[in-house]
Amino acid sequence: MTLQKRTVFYLSDRTGITAETLGHSLLTQFDGIAWEIVNIPFLDDENKVDSAVTQINGAAERDGYRPLVFSTLQKPEILQQIKQSNCRVYDFFETFTRSVEEELHQPSVRKSGRSHALQQYRSYFKRIDAVNYVLAHDDGINPKHFGTADIILIGISRVGKTPTCLYMGLQYGIAAANYPLTPDDMTTLQIPAVLTPVSNKLFGLTLAAEQLHFIRQKRQPNSEYASLAQCQHEVRWQESLFRCFNIPYLDTTRISVEEISTIILNRCGLTRRLYG
Amino acid sequence: MTLQKRTVFYLSDRTGITAETLGHSLLTQFDGIAWEIVNIPFLDDENKVDSAVTQINGAAERDGYRPLVFSTLQKPEILQQIKQSNCRVYDFFETFTRSVEEELHQPSVRKSGRSHALQQYRSYFKRIDAVNYVLAHDDGINPKHFGTADIILIGISRVGKTPTCLYMGLQYGIAAANYPLTPDDMTTLQIPAVLTPVSNKLFGLTLAAEQLHFIRQKRQPNSEYASLAQCQHEVRWQESLFRCFNIPYLDTTRISVEEISTIILNRCGLTRRLYG
Repeated sequence: MTLQKRTVFYLSDRTGITAETLGHSLLTQFDGIAWEIVNIPFLDDENKVDSAVTQINGAAERDGYRPLVFSTLQKPEILQQIKQSNCRVYDFFETFTRSVEEELHQPSVRKSGRSHALQQYRSYFKRIDAVNYVLAHDDGINPKHFGTADIILIGISRVGKTPTCLYMGLQYGIAAANYPLTPDDMTTLQIPAVLTPVSNKLFGLTLAAEQLHFIRQKRQPNSEYASLAQCQHEVRWQESLFRCFNIPYLDTTRISVEEISTIILNRCGLTRRLYG
Repeated sequence: MTLQKRTVFYLSDRTGITAETLGHSLLTQFDGIAWEIVNIPFLDDENKVDSAVTQINGAAERDGYRPLVFSTLQKPEILQQIKQSNCRVYDFFETFTRSVEEELHQPSVRKSGRSHALQQYRSYFKRIDAVNYVLAHDDGINPKHFGTADIILIGISRVGKTPTCLYMGLQYGIAAANYPLTPDDMTTLQIPAVLTPVSNKLFGLTLAAEQLHFIRQKRQPNSEYASLAQCQHEVRWQESLFRCFNIPYLDTTRISVEEISTIILNRCGLTRRLYG
């Protein structure tokens, strides 16, 4: 059986990140369709609109179905032109703005680019500072400065500490440090001494031994380090450690960096805010 | 004049990232309101729903206005309970799902967590590999391996190369390297020799000298490095270089990391895909 093919357009007069996030959420609810995705960001002048309309009509003809268009277009005249092409339009502002206006008893300003634009220096610098913090405190660097961390992720090699810290820094402005647990630590069931003064900031990451084995195999095939037995040993040891010292921890098997970050911030009561 | 205060809830049975993105985009269209934001992710059982309802009703009483609730709740029974509290609900799935179902002539699967969950190993590994690539090729490290980069950002110190590369890696799985242009390079108008074999992958970042001065002042106050004259000199030099060698470049003054990344990928024709 061949899959039904449908083309999806994400249109925006700015980045299109909001349109894509929302459209993606909806489309994951439909199985059995082969999606072809077309992003058209910065759709803000006549020539670009003409080109978008041509692409939409072309896709409709090619697929035999009209494309789905998810948009966050602010200019009504651009949205109107898109609507005249052969597609089904889901525009987020058009759908919700009127009813939010009613609720707030005031008109919206209808300006584009307010969502992902650099509006507040302070929040921008907070994020950049957080990224610098993450890089300066990755993989156990500078543990003496861990006192200034918002959170310190700990766990064995390849458990996802670095991407999670970077995501928390870049997206939420969280100063996230991380410290690797190594076989050297495993001779006793003790927290590495350097971490004891900051034990209230620790958060553990763990993973199914089979997935860890798979990940490590990609890095160092057929090594002792990557062997399933070694992975099982390390996972068992660190989970005992987390339990023994009441360190909150999360099994990240099959969950994404976004989810891991959200869960951690939620559990630790750290403020998260997508954009400043 | 004191601002009208309104509480906004982002509710989800998973991370709430989609609900927050949607709500944030809408709310930036309204000025003059002091928003209080409450995130309630992983809202998936009776106790949590009771607690959410209590929080919503409490905020309504405190503010003197009913809260706005943006939600991506998949379970109709949970959504129904929330709707009975004193609030205005904007549920994203309820609003759009039926009409997408009509358009596709098939029912949605109505499962939560499909959007930000780790669905495909391949895309997960692509992102993690990209982050590792960015870290291994940051700030001019390993330029001999720049041939494997998808893109190489160049620019003077503090122009935003590292956060942009990390964002492109983490969000889009792009192998982004970066290379700093330093005063040592400025004796001639030449591309650093190590970059000539990969000149087709170069993309320049620049910034208003005043903003660069402000950023550098925070790092090294009253240094020669941070002086406005030095910033002006470096910016002028690098912009001449970009023009002379036809290197595409972007002025990042007052635009966010998200926007910078989207513009670069769009201009270079690199595939961007939020998730997936």
